[in-house]
Amino acid sequence: MPDLLPYLRADLIAAGQFFHHRGWVPATSSNFSARLGAQEILVTRSGQHKGRLDENGFLRADLQGMSLEEGKRPSAETGLHALMYQRDAEIGCVLHTHSVNATVLSMRLDAVTLEGYELQKAFPGIQTHEGQVVVPVFANSQDIPALAAEVAAYLDMHPETVAYLIRGHGVYTWGATVADTLRHIEALEFLFECVYRQLLLDR
Amino acid sequence: MPDLLPYLRADLIAAGQFFHHRGWVPATSSNFSARLGAQEILVTRSGQHKGRLDENGFLRADLQGMSLEEGKRPSAETGLHALMYQRDAEIGCVLHTHSVNATVLSMRLDAVTLEGYELQKAFPGIQTHEGQVVVPVFANSQDIPALAAEVAAYLDMHPETVAYLIRGHGVYTWGATVADTLRHIEALEFLFECVYRQLLLDR
Amino acid sequence: MPDLLPYLRADLIAAGQFFHHRGWVPATSSNFSARLGAQEILVTRSGQHKGRLDENGFLRADLQGMSLEEGKRPSAETGLHALMYQRDAEIGCVLHTHSVNATVLSMRLDAVTLEGYELQKAFPGIQTHEGQVVVPVFANSQDIPALAAEVAAYLDMHPETVAYLIRGHGVYTWGATVADTLRHIEALEFLFECVYRQLLLDR
Amino acid sequence: MPDLLPYLRADLIAAGQFFHHRGWVPATSSNFSARLGAQEILVTRSGQHKGRLDENGFLRADLQGMSLEEGKRPSAETGLHALMYQRDAEIGCVLHTHSVNATVLSMRLDAVTLEGYELQKAFPGIQTHEGQVVVPVFANSQDIPALAAEVAAYLDMHPETVAYLIRGHGVYTWGATVADTLRHIEALEFLFECVYRQLLLDR
Repeated sequence: MPDLLPYLRADLIAAGQFFHHRGWVPATSSNFSARLGAQEILVTRSGQHKGRLDENGFLRADLQGMSLEEGKRPSAETGLHALMYQRDAEIGCVLHTHSVNATVLSMRLDAVTLEGYELQKAFPGIQTHEGQVVVPVFANSQDIPALAAEVAAYLDMHPETVAYLIRGHGVYTWGATVADTLRHIEALEFLFECVYRQLLLDR
Repeated sequence: MPDLLPYLRADLIAAGQFFHHRGWVPATSSNFSARLGAQEILVTRSGQHKGRLDENGFLRADLQGMSLEEGKRPSAETGLHALMYQRDAEIGCVLHTHSVNATVLSMRLDAVTLEGYELQKAFPGIQTHEGQVVVPVFANSQDIPALAAEVAAYLDMHPETVAYLIRGHGVYTWGATVADTLRHIEALEFLFECVYRQLLLDR
Repeated sequence: MPDLLPYLRADLIAAGQFFHHRGWVPATSSNFSARLGAQEILVTRSGQHKGRLDENGFLRADLQGMSLEEGKRPSAETGLHALMYQRDAEIGCVLHTHSVNATVLSMRLDAVTLEGYELQKAFPGIQTHEGQVVVPVFANSQDIPALAAEVAAYLDMHPETVAYLIRGHGVYTWGATVADTLRHIEALEFLFECVYRQLLLDR
Repeated sequence: MPDLLPYLRADLIAAGQFFHHRGWVPATSSNFSARLGAQEILVTRSGQHKGRLDENGFLRADLQGMSLEEGKRPSAETGLHALMYQRDAEIGCVLHTHSVNATVLSMRLDAVTLEGYELQKAFPGIQTHEGQVVVPVFANSQDIPALAAEVAAYLDMHPETVAYLIRGHGVYTWGATVADTLRHIEALEFLFECVYRQLLLDR
């Protein structure tokens, strides 16, 4: 089997550069992952700037989020990535970014409800602007296993979910490939800016 | 006759890169076209990111919007491009972009009326800031032929129209050349940002 | 005497690229000039995009704003540039840009009054944030000689003026060199964004 | 001992280019420094554009902020840099930037209080979003020694401080390395934009 790792790593590095250009990965926030196999993922290391990643910015981990490389520590939030790969064998990438709008909206709303936007069609299985896409907001926590359990319970009840926010902390989304997941981030950030601008006009 | 296609394609690729830099073509939204001849246009294919187009991102279509290349599917909205080329032999380019401001304004207004802006002179035949430029908003629809018929009826009544919005979906504009139409997009997006900022101050 | 023209032209081309990156020269708006000698200036031609200027984007004109190059038409607003070179032999550059904030503020205010900003020190002769810098707004007009006369009368009364706005049309500023005038534009645009953001909070 | 100077200078030049891209160092505002040794710092010269620094844009100064290079004048605000190096031998870099948000917030608030933001963890010693990070605002003054004394008195009382604002003038922050301090600027600017957007929604 040809080695996927260099291709996936290059895609995640490029995604990070694009996000940094837009201001969505400030300081050492955010983390990215992609599936290497049935039981293995590639994930960004702790403490890296995600807009300036290189080969050393990643490690291999198992689907419990434990490092498979001695001496390399995964990001604290790797458990939230691992959760998605455990839940669905079709998921090939998870991206967590940290934009101003994701932060501000998540501190004011319990969910961001998208309706009437053509760009909702950027998400899988959505053919029209007429439905609703609900992006739930979870309270922030430094206890990642507890947060992962809360997310899992929500996803069990709402399997159509395409993304979620953590309060004051940013967005998580996933997809079959890095390109698909990047498209979700781009659509979500566009829609969050629309929602923020609408909120300002609504007051 | 020298082949126009590579030149028009290069111009549309460059336009897409510029729009992406500004955030006006998120995810796989937007589509671009240019006239190749009396009965033929070049148009972006379905599902492409318009900020990262290459030679494979286009197909030739007839003025009914049907693909002239086997196995290549035009974007669903090609009918809205074809409409303009059918109506006016002088039209050489149609650009549809999808910005935050075009989205937000089209969800709140029935038309964007521009008045007193020097930049109105960027549109053909306008010599002063003193008149009004009206950009109508049409309800969004996944039924493109019905939407095209509605646009055509409006343009019959208002032949001076330089652009229109589809609600929650973005802007369409056209011109003799790619450069002219790009200038219209740049002017429209500038003016939409002005209108949004004015609306915020007006509340 | 060594030929200044290629150096000044290169500086104005680079200034235009920077302004375009910031969105301050949309479509074919804006115009730039620099002094070539006691009776001669270099000025952008009509109809050029100021973010993509090349050697052909300029012409030499006299201090009345008349072209010194057969077949090359100066921008309509060259008279507003010529006015400044006539008034003050120390002026070596005039820049007119066209930003969203300059447009919006000029449509709502009769003058933009800057006070308490450290960046006021970017203007010549200002050593503290404590004074006031007043940027007057003139009504827009397609009659450039009339507008130039109005500006001249104001400057006679207010010789400390560093810049002025034309309503819905953008800002003019000037300086001894292209670098100085570029610094004024950068400071003005920064301060206009501050003023707009303050206005939003003040409502 | 290998010479640190070229490395630190290159890091500060790159930091300035990044800040300029974001619009945080307009005109000749802002200044940067890094520690060269126990009694010596490298600091930007007066009058330079901080987004286009080269080797000539710096000078060596002592911890009193006096130039160690004949004929090169330090920026007026070097005293605010020197203060930090005097106070703490662990400080290796001080960055002062000048953004729209830092300017606007500092003109309306007596302190910017950050609470509930995950990105607070970008600052040293902070492990959770649950505490408060207070960024005090000092009145602007052209009397730098007086301002430095006021800052020093505040820091004596509040040693946990990570940054401060000067009214209408921008932000100062510091860290062990250029990379650490750059991370603080990026986090502060992100959080200031969040706070501004929250203020708009709160009115």
